[in-house]
Amino acid sequence: MEMINSGNQEKTSTGPAGSWGFVKSLPGKLKSCAVETVKKTKKIGEDDPRRIVHSMKVGLALTLVSLFYYFRPLYDGFGQAGMWAVLTVVVVFEFTVGGTLSKSINRGCATLLAGALGVGAEYLASLCGEKGEPVVLGLMVFFLAAASTFTRFFPNVKRKYDYGVLIFILTFSLVAVSGFRVTQILQLAHQRLSTILIGGATCMLISIFVCPVWAGQDLHNLVAANIEKLASFLEGFGHEFYGPSAVDGSGAISSKNECKPSFLEAYKSVLNSKATEESLANFAWWEPGHGRFRFHHPWKQYLKVGAMARECACLIETLNRYVNSKHQVASEFQIKIQEACIKMSTESSKALKEVASAIKSMTFPSSGVETHTQNYKAAADDLKTILETCSLPTEADLQEIMPALVVASVLLDIIKCIDKISLSVHELSRMAGFKKPKSTATALPEKQQQTTLLHRGIVKPVNDITDDDDHVVIEVHGTTSQDSPEMKNVHPPQGLGEKK
Amino acid sequence: MEMINSGNQEKTSTGPAGSWGFVKSLPGKLKSCAVETVKKTKKIGEDDPRRIVHSMKVGLALTLVSLFYYFRPLYDGFGQAGMWAVLTVVVVFEFTVGGTLSKSINRGCATLLAGALGVGAEYLASLCGEKGEPVVLGLMVFFLAAASTFTRFFPNVKRKYDYGVLIFILTFSLVAVSGFRVTQILQLAHQRLSTILIGGATCMLISIFVCPVWAGQDLHNLVAANIEKLASFLEGFGHEFYGPSAVDGSGAISSKNECKPSFLEAYKSVLNSKATEESLANFAWWEPGHGRFRFHHPWKQYLKVGAMARECACLIETLNRYVNSKHQVASEFQIKIQEACIKMSTESSKALKEVASAIKSMTFPSSGVETHTQNYKAAADDLKTILETCSLPTEADLQEIMPALVVASVLLDIIKCIDKISLSVHELSRMAGFKKPKSTATALPEKQQQTTLLHRGIVKPVNDITDDDDHVVIEVHGTTSQDSPEMKNVHPPQGLGEKK
Repeated sequence: MEMINSGNQEKTSTGPAGSWGFVKSLPGKLKSCAVETVKKTKKIGEDDPRRIVHSMKVGLALTLVSLFYYFRPLYDGFGQAGMWAVLTVVVVFEFTVGGTLSKSINRGCATLLAGALGVGAEYLASLCGEKGEPVVLGLMVFFLAAASTFTRFFPNVKRKYDYGVLIFILTFSLVAVSGFRVTQILQLAHQRLSTILIGGATCMLISIFVCPVWAGQDLHNLVAANIEKLASFLEGFGHEFYGPSAVDGSGAISSKNECKPSFLEAYKSVLNSKATEESLANFAWWEPGHGRFRFHHPWKQYLKVGAMARECACLIETLNRYVNSKHQVASEFQIKIQEACIKMSTESSKALKEVASAIKSMTFPSSGVETHTQNYKAAADDLKTILETCSLPTEADLQEIMPALVVASVLLDIIKCIDKISLSVHELSRMAGFKKPKSTATALPEKQQQTTLLHRGIVKPVNDITDDDDHVVIEVHGTTSQDSPEMKNVHPPQGLGEKK
Repeated sequence: MEMINSGNQEKTSTGPAGSWGFVKSLPGKLKSCAVETVKKTKKIGEDDPRRIVHSMKVGLALTLVSLFYYFRPLYDGFGQAGMWAVLTVVVVFEFTVGGTLSKSINRGCATLLAGALGVGAEYLASLCGEKGEPVVLGLMVFFLAAASTFTRFFPNVKRKYDYGVLIFILTFSLVAVSGFRVTQILQLAHQRLSTILIGGATCMLISIFVCPVWAGQDLHNLVAANIEKLASFLEGFGHEFYGPSAVDGSGAISSKNECKPSFLEAYKSVLNSKATEESLANFAWWEPGHGRFRFHHPWKQYLKVGAMARECACLIETLNRYVNSKHQVASEFQIKIQEACIKMSTESSKALKEVASAIKSMTFPSSGVETHTQNYKAAADDLKTILETCSLPTEADLQEIMPALVVASVLLDIIKCIDKISLSVHELSRMAGFKKPKSTATALPEKQQQTTLLHRGIVKPVNDITDDDDHVVIEVHGTTSQDSPEMKNVHPPQGLGEKK
């Protein structure tokens, strides 16, 4: 009941507003409920207008196939089987192109295979005589259904072929059992396959050519947006934790950045993004090349970047607990370290923003990432120096300095995490063949040439600390690769390693 | 292809081991691949033997329904419609009872409704004359399909009625369009509904009465297991971070607890448990009362407990970064605070274990939770006192004390989180009517009677700090309720508030 009501209300809401007049005569409760639903409908539509387009696409595909079924000339050719075209459209049309393709292809292949097996089973069973046949058929259906159902628990099968296995069981049972009744089994198979093909092809064509929603593009955008959310938090954090005066004094954040609390909450959605990312990556796997994505774009690498973003979001969750303590009077110690901390936070935020915009524009991360990486590393070094040399009054209350110290420590962890994110985005750029900015590297020593070969475009680090050579290659030490064993084979870009 | 191979291999593996002889004649690569698959199959089956049972249940249901379709007496009554029973079994049989019920009920109701609407649409269209009919039908299919598809984006509809909407669109299109051809539309509807009922009922009965897998029970166990994983980490953490000697010295962990690294990784699965918990809660909503779960058990409360467990897991993720630094030489400062920290970690671990076992046994959290809560709060107070009074050498290297201090601070956050978990589990016990241990509270002053009314069984806190009265009620102050605005209406159990 409920779903039907929503359906009708939704439909009405897309009509002219004037048609709501009749609601007034109904009791107030029903009216407010309807108004609520209209508002919700509007919000859902506004949040992602592609949803409205998708609904119309489903309507279009279904109408086309229904009319195909309706008109006699076609109907005569296919008989009742035309029904399967309608059924196919309803069940395979998904929001993304990848989802539709995955279901259509699974359905087509599974029907073909299961049909062939079913005919075989039917033939085998018929050899066993009148009495043996139902027993043999029953046993075969039982074992095949049980075995196929079990394969659905295999993670690989579950990810890509779950729907195919379902259709396989379905078709096999139908063919094996109904085969006994319908003598023209081959004609039936031909009809059914043709109609499924018609339904599937209609879905695929409409899904690809009418305002397509690419799962790959969505995954790409989601990963970039998640990195941006982390950046927004880090940008706003200095302001919130140390107070506006501290930040403005350091000049690190321009005055136009007003830290809204929403900036400080956006990262929470990153924490729970795993399921969405994985399903998008699964669908993206099925999509043909589109726009600047090739057929086998490295979708798995997006999952790696996403996992690191979640790790970083977890640290940010810890950091966020200290934002509430902003109203305390800054201790002497906090003032000593706050400049370095604010710099770490804002520079790492800028580095993340550069990384996110590189993903968005599908280019190698710009030299800006390099610059900001150098800057936050320098700030981290400054912080470490302050911590080493800082003298506290002997009767210091450690509870007072604890928040500042914990924040500093978590920020140090966060920048390690950001190093890993940059590294895996670099790897992504390489694997996906992102565009490279014009190289300025010429006549480098051989070893350096090798190092920069993969990372053309970040050859010229703008190093504001100790560089006296434009093309210096900073050796990469254990820190980053220790932290991420899966990254061991990745050639790290310059400057991301820690200096000794 | 791949899924079919896995299917066959899996099937073979369930047969006698001797049947693998033929593999030897195939190339080595194929053989090793097959062996790999068998191993994987075995592991998947061993991980959760209910999967094997489920596969057999699907096989059984499908065989029953297929044979029903196969035998002529029944076949004659239902015609081709018997196919729909097979189809229904394949698509609605889910792993959990809730999943099966949700799909069966959705399918049944949606078919009924859409069938009625379809007949209505067909009748309306027939009023428009020969030429108008296809146009009107096409428009109706288009608008109904588009509107219904859009409702699938409503979170509420998506959660509970997604499959119903799908079947609604399907049936409406089939009836509206095919109605033109089949004059005996009511007979068709009757046939189809009966067969769907037979398929659905077979699934529901087998799913409920043959080794049922209750989604509610699974959710219940999952939430308890997640809390236990957090407890395992906290139990092992002291050992790992401060070294075995520190822990053994304090006598807090008995020698039988050998901290395997797996204990320290288990919590990671808690971080990504949100999607599983939500789908289980959705399915559980459909389940009838079973065992000690009533029909409308407070499943949503499990989601709240789960969310808090994830919050705690996030803090543990931060803590886990410091486990690797265990080989450092303990600084003088660390030795000062480690006893309190180890106590906080082990006592909070014990409290969590008590909470988890209370959930498992479906009783109110025992007085043990109370005791451990008091203990870790006392340890936290000790820690705070040490931090306040501790004097550092003026030339102290803050970098050296930083890990110890951060760990202490995160542990303080963790115990706040654990307070919230206990509180919400108490609320769950109350809402779900868990069993209460025998009350020992008699002749209390009226106010205390009221306070203990809801929490009989934790009336007698074993308070090892300052209690001189067995029945003292510690007033609850702001800390816990401030931290959790959604908990404001919850009556907190004694001793969970912070003492002034």
